[in-house]
Amino acid sequence: MLANILERTRAASPLVHCITNYVTANDCANLLLASGASAIMADDPDEVEEVTAMCAGLVLNLGTPSPRRGSAMQRAGRAAALLGHPVVFDPVGVGSSALRRSIAQQLFEHVRPSIIRGNASEIRTLNDGSAAHRGVDADAGGESLESRVSTARCLARSSGAVVVQTGTVDVVTDGETTYLVKNGHPMMSSVTGAGCQLSALIGAYAAANRDDLLHAALAAVCAMGLCGELAVRHMGPLDGNASYRNRIIDAVFHLRGPELEGGANYEHF
Amino acid sequence: MLANILERTRAASPLVHCITNYVTANDCANLLLASGASAIMADDPDEVEEVTAMCAGLVLNLGTPSPRRGSAMQRAGRAAALLGHPVVFDPVGVGSSALRRSIAQQLFEHVRPSIIRGNASEIRTLNDGSAAHRGVDADAGGESLESRVSTARCLARSSGAVVVQTGTVDVVTDGETTYLVKNGHPMMSSVTGAGCQLSALIGAYAAANRDDLLHAALAAVCAMGLCGELAVRHMGPLDGNASYRNRIIDAVFHLRGPELEGGANYEHF
Amino acid sequence: MLANILERTRAASPLVHCITNYVTANDCANLLLASGASAIMADDPDEVEEVTAMCAGLVLNLGTPSPRRGSAMQRAGRAAALLGHPVVFDPVGVGSSALRRSIAQQLFEHVRPSIIRGNASEIRTLNDGSAAHRGVDADAGGESLESRVSTARCLARSSGAVVVQTGTVDVVTDGETTYLVKNGHPMMSSVTGAGCQLSALIGAYAAANRDDLLHAALAAVCAMGLCGELAVRHMGPLDGNASYRNRIIDAVFHLRGPELEGGANYEHF
Repeated sequence: MLANILERTRAASPLVHCITNYVTANDCANLLLASGASAIMADDPDEVEEVTAMCAGLVLNLGTPSPRRGSAMQRAGRAAALLGHPVVFDPVGVGSSALRRSIAQQLFEHVRPSIIRGNASEIRTLNDGSAAHRGVDADAGGESLESRVSTARCLARSSGAVVVQTGTVDVVTDGETTYLVKNGHPMMSSVTGAGCQLSALIGAYAAANRDDLLHAALAAVCAMGLCGELAVRHMGPLDGNASYRNRIIDAVFHLRGPELEGGANYEHF
Repeated sequence: MLANILERTRAASPLVHCITNYVTANDCANLLLASGASAIMADDPDEVEEVTAMCAGLVLNLGTPSPRRGSAMQRAGRAAALLGHPVVFDPVGVGSSALRRSIAQQLFEHVRPSIIRGNASEIRTLNDGSAAHRGVDADAGGESLESRVSTARCLARSSGAVVVQTGTVDVVTDGETTYLVKNGHPMMSSVTGAGCQLSALIGAYAAANRDDLLHAALAAVCAMGLCGELAVRHMGPLDGNASYRNRIIDAVFHLRGPELEGGANYEHF
Repeated sequence: MLANILERTRAASPLVHCITNYVTANDCANLLLASGASAIMADDPDEVEEVTAMCAGLVLNLGTPSPRRGSAMQRAGRAAALLGHPVVFDPVGVGSSALRRSIAQQLFEHVRPSIIRGNASEIRTLNDGSAAHRGVDADAGGESLESRVSTARCLARSSGAVVVQTGTVDVVTDGETTYLVKNGHPMMSSVTGAGCQLSALIGAYAAANRDDLLHAALAAVCAMGLCGELAVRHMGPLDGNASYRNRIIDAVFHLRGPELEGGANYEHF
C-alpha cells in the first residue's frame, strides 16, 4: 500500500504550491524534487490563487509569518479547497505569538485543512488553545503517548483533517483509524526544518493520492523517518548535521516503493 | 575565447547585485563566490539604487515576487542602466500569474534588460504573451528546436537583449548570431534553482565582460552545463540531488579557463 | 575558560531569536543547532516581542533589510534589553545605503546592543559614519591592525558593547581588554554568510553565558575559526565552497570543550 502511494507520486510528479518560511524553503523545494514532485513557492496575496490553480496540492507553513503571508494563505487555501486540492497545514510555532494563533484560527474558519502536521505542543495548541510552547522544536517529552494520541484524535475529529503529530513516536490519525510510526532517528532534530520538509512531502504524496489522504500521510511519515535512518547509516565520522541534511534528501531521491514497504515501521494503535 | 571570459571574471571579481527569490538566494550567492565574483542581495525599494551603484552588474529574478520587489527591480534596473551595468532578467514562472507578467512588462518598458535567461515556456510567454506554462520547471519538450530558436531570436530582436533559452539544448542568441549549447545533464532538473544559479553566473560573467555580452552569456551557459557534467561523474551511489547541488557549485569553484575551453560543447546554429 | 563557555551552551541549549536575512538564515539555523542551541526566526513587528520573550538571546542581522524588518529589530531589541537578554548586532553592509545606516542608528539610540560583530569597514562605518565600504564582504586590507584595534576599542567604549571585528586577524574587545584571534582560514571568505553564522554562534554563547559576554564572544570567534581550519583539513580534491560550508557546520556539531581549548589561537593585544 505505502509503495503504491510513493510510486503514484513519482508517476504523477505533482506540482505543489508552498507558502512557506524563508528559512527552510530551499530544502523543502529540493525534498519535493527528490520525491518526484516539484514545488512552486509564491506567497503574494495578489498571485496565490492563480498559482495554486496550476498545482495539484498546497502546503501552508506558519514559519516566519506576517499578516501579508497570512492573507496569502487564506486566499490560496480557499482557492485550493474549491478545486479539491489537498491542503496541508504546518502550524510552526503556533503557540509562540498572537499573530500565529490568529493566522491559524482564520485558516480553520475559512479553509479547513486536509492534513495538519505538527509536533506535540503545536497540535495541543491547535486543539485547546494552550499557549505553553517552546519555540519551533520537537517536544522532548513529558506527555504520555496515550495523551498525545487522544489530543491528535480530538483535533482530527473537530477539524475534519488527518492529523500527523510527530515526536519520538509519530501519530497519524483521521480520528477513527490511528497509526503509530516508529521510523526516524534522534539526529533528525539537529536538522533545521526536518518537520517542514516532512510537511512538504506529505503535500506531494497527498496531491498524487487524493483518494486516500490518511495513507498518503502515513506513507510520507514512514518515508521521511526511514530516510532519516538510512542517512545515519551512511554518515562518516566527521559528518554532522549539515551533511546529514543533504543525506536525508539524497535518501528520499533514491527511495522506491519496495524499500519503503520493507522499511516502514508502523502499527495500528 | 570562453576561457578569457571566465578568467577575466576571476580577475575582476565583480560585485553583483541580486534581487532574487528567497528559495534559491543562498545557492546563488555561493555560486557567485565559486565563480570568483560576489553577491550583495538587497530588495528594498528604498536602498536598491544605492546598492546597485556599488556593483558592476544586476540580476533580477522573478521568483517569489511581490509588488514591493517589482518596484525594487524597476528602480534598480533604471539605476543600473544609467550606469551602463549589464542587467540580467530571469523571468521565473512569468506565465504563472498576472503579477509576474505585470512586473515583467514594467521592466521591459522602463529598463530594457541586457540579457534574458529563461526556459522555453518563459521565453515564449515573454515573446508572445502566451499563458501556457507549467510552473517554474524546464519544459519537457513538445516544441521543436527550430521553433525554440525562432522564438528566442524574435525576443532578442524585439527586446534588444541577448536571450538565453535553456532546455535539453540551450539557445544563446542576440538575434543575429545564434549558438546551441549541448553541455549539461538531465539530473540538473532535480536541483531547485539550477536556472537561478545560471542567471547569477551570467550576471557575473557579463559584469566582467561588458564589451561582449553574447559571449559572456555563452561562456556562462557552457560553464554551468559543464559543471553539471563534471559533478555527475563524481557522484557516489548514495548521492542524490542535495549532494549534487553542492557538487555543481564545487565544480564551478574549481573551473578554470582551459577546462572550460576544452569542455564547452557548442556550435553555431 | 573557553571550554566552559562552549559546554555551558551545550548544557543550556538556549533558544535564540534571530531577525536575519533570508540569504543565510538556513545556515544560521543549522549552525545554532550544531552548537547545541536552537533558533527561532521571526521578523514581523507584530510578533517579535512575544517571540523574543520565549528566548534567551537575540541576534539582529542587517542583511536584506526593509523598514518593516528595521521596526521589528527595534521592538525585539527593546524587549530583549528589558528582559536582560544579550543582543548581538551584525551590521551587514551598513555602509551600503541610507536605509541600513538609519536602521543601525535607531538601534543604537533605542536598544544598545550587547555585542557588535562586523568586518573592518562595517565597524568603521558604525564608529565614524564613513560611507567607504565595498559590499558585504571582508575587507581585503589596507588598514593596519593597530588602526583596526583602535577603531574597535573606540566603538566599544562609545557603545558600551563588546565589539568583534573580523578579518585576517579578528579583534575582540570591550574597550578595556582586547584579544586578537588568529584562528580561521582564507577559504571561509568563499562561503556566503560565514560572518552571519559567526554572529549567530556569538548569540548562542552569549545567551548561555550572560555573565561574561567578552569571553563568550571570544570563544565563539575561536570556535568558528577553528572549525574553518578543521573543515579545510578534511576537504577532498574536488570539494569547493559548497561542501566547505557543510563541513564547517559539521565541525561545529562535533566541537567540544577540550578541542576548543586546545585549538584556540588568541592573545592579549
